[in-house]
Amino acid sequence: MIMFTDFGLLGPYTGQMKAVLHQMVPGTSIIDLFADAPVGNPMASAYLLAAYAAWFPAGSIFLGVVEPGVGGARPPVMLRADGRWYVGPGNGLFELVERRAAEAESWYIDWKPERLSASFHGRDLFAPVAAMLARGEAPPGRSCGDDAHRRAEWPDDLCKIVYVDHFGNAMTGLRAAILPSEARLAVADRVLERARTFSDLPPSTPFWYENSNGLAEIAVNLGRADHDLGLVIGTSLEIVS
Amino acid sequence: MIMFTDFGLLGPYTGQMKAVLHQMVPGTSIIDLFADAPVGNPMASAYLLAAYAAWFPAGSIFLGVVEPGVGGARPPVMLRADGRWYVGPGNGLFELVERRAAEAESWYIDWKPERLSASFHGRDLFAPVAAMLARGEAPPGRSCGDDAHRRAEWPDDLCKIVYVDHFGNAMTGLRAAILPSEARLAVADRVLERARTFSDLPPSTPFWYENSNGLAEIAVNLGRADHDLGLVIGTSLEIVS
Amino acid sequence: MIMFTDFGLLGPYTGQMKAVLHQMVPGTSIIDLFADAPVGNPMASAYLLAAYAAWFPAGSIFLGVVEPGVGGARPPVMLRADGRWYVGPGNGLFELVERRAAEAESWYIDWKPERLSASFHGRDLFAPVAAMLARGEAPPGRSCGDDAHRRAEWPDDLCKIVYVDHFGNAMTGLRAAILPSEARLAVADRVLERARTFSDLPPSTPFWYENSNGLAEIAVNLGRADHDLGLVIGTSLEIVS
Repeated sequence: MIMFTDFGLLGPYTGQMKAVLHQMVPGTSIIDLFADAPVGNPMASAYLLAAYAAWFPAGSIFLGVVEPGVGGARPPVMLRADGRWYVGPGNGLFELVERRAAEAESWYIDWKPERLSASFHGRDLFAPVAAMLARGEAPPGRSCGDDAHRRAEWPDDLCKIVYVDHFGNAMTGLRAAILPSEARLAVADRVLERARTFSDLPPSTPFWYENSNGLAEIAVNLGRADHDLGLVIGTSLEIVS
Repeated sequence: MIMFTDFGLLGPYTGQMKAVLHQMVPGTSIIDLFADAPVGNPMASAYLLAAYAAWFPAGSIFLGVVEPGVGGARPPVMLRADGRWYVGPGNGLFELVERRAAEAESWYIDWKPERLSASFHGRDLFAPVAAMLARGEAPPGRSCGDDAHRRAEWPDDLCKIVYVDHFGNAMTGLRAAILPSEARLAVADRVLERARTFSDLPPSTPFWYENSNGLAEIAVNLGRADHDLGLVIGTSLEIVS
Repeated sequence: MIMFTDFGLLGPYTGQMKAVLHQMVPGTSIIDLFADAPVGNPMASAYLLAAYAAWFPAGSIFLGVVEPGVGGARPPVMLRADGRWYVGPGNGLFELVERRAAEAESWYIDWKPERLSASFHGRDLFAPVAAMLARGEAPPGRSCGDDAHRRAEWPDDLCKIVYVDHFGNAMTGLRAAILPSEARLAVADRVLERARTFSDLPPSTPFWYENSNGLAEIAVNLGRADHDLGLVIGTSLEIVS
């Protein structure tokens, strides 16, 4: 079971979701993939999740919760894409996973818990459904007959910063594989060259590189790209040939 | 096993406590409920713990450590309340759990470890005792014959902020169920109305609502209540009818 | 399995390393000892790790990753010291563990993964090797015939702050056991006396004490030593008799 949320690890949210999973699927291992996905931003999160989920083997179950307004209307969904399962809100969070999959099928969740709080569907709805899938049960819902949960208008890659890591490196929503090998990235009044990795450059030099999960990432050798260049989630960039 | 501490997750404290639990009870699952309980504040923590512990099933074992002066005098205690176990310092941390329980019994811990550090009873004393209880052993101590570990003078509900979460929402020490349905909360020169959940209100509007664990919580739709209203742990509030 | 990194817990790095461990050694328990070791600072980290690793039983496997320049040249190593295993970069991170061990042997890692990213050896190289050791396999490499991974010039104890914890307490790289019992520590224009623990002193008084893992640590009763004294990782201190 793999968790992808904007809930943080410290407070009660991640812990209560894990308590549900451990109770319903004793002995299951739970991975915190991201607990600091872009807060309330399913669009940026969608590009991040698609890049990182692809690294996991088929059969993996992702419990993904990133929502802007707590308690708003959106269908709760389940998605099976290239053999991996995804459970969470139908607000675009799984759009890029679904679009890039060779094989995908999605369901609206019909199952209702005995008690559904207004503000914590992660614990009351999504975690139990993820646990059911982990136990090998059929998806408790009906196949999506429409595209209400899709975001066809979103681009295939996103020319924005979608995540800033612990070290200040700034991930973009661009897959490095779609960029020409000599492509440069213009961001914050700088034009950055590509490098293989940090240590190929002198200290304090900003550059971009293909990170270990295939995203174009902006970094500074022995520095912090976020502070040095003023990058935050949402900062736009341009591809320069 | 459920952990409730003010130790954080990053440093060595939570990890060493978990190492003791895994060594003494191999295969046990450990939930981080709160690792950022109000620092050194057992009173605020007591109202938070009582609200969140009630969500867990009977048989759960809580390892709770929140202490103001490290190494000071207070009895180490065990409590069984409504079928749940609690192990930690007898400084009031479990007062509200005990007071609200239909059935409760408490013990002073008599067991002594081979080596007891002056500053880390969580690892050396409380974690091993929690592990003994998880293995089904009898509580290693004697029934509390007095009320030295109780805090009879504390109110049944606390008119203060007791926790600020990852999103800036501010939990109070008030159970929503004891408030009249039309009650308003006065805090930081504002008088807040009750709402069902975030998305029922326009963006940037502060309100209070019953959170998913029954506490009255102050929030701002698509905003941060802590920054917008200047709320911190300890901020007082008033109930206005 | 015990993790000691500067990766943080929130982002994708710790989670992906744990995913490798769970996949290769199902059911293994994983302890986060430090996820906030001194960033990019293997020297400070080495004194911290040596103090904390000694608390764990023989047979423990440490996965340690702290590196200054990502992707730079250094041998990947395995070390067995007093029955505990260590896997990570040969950049001095394990120097103090090895030096203080009664019995130690080290290996260069020869094993190569199918796909080795330029920037995430923790996931692609070190985690799989730690998993092999956890499964009881022989160390996949050759015994170190040289001292290229050693740091003979580093002192036996480090007169610097090596870690600041969640509460603002500042750990030094000095083992308390090597200090005269009446030793004082001069730091930030103050000369600090030794105490047994926090509550032995009036509030707001800075002091030093032997922490629960044997390091000399600077603290302030009911205060934060980092803020009150201006201490950060790397701050120098002196032993005054």
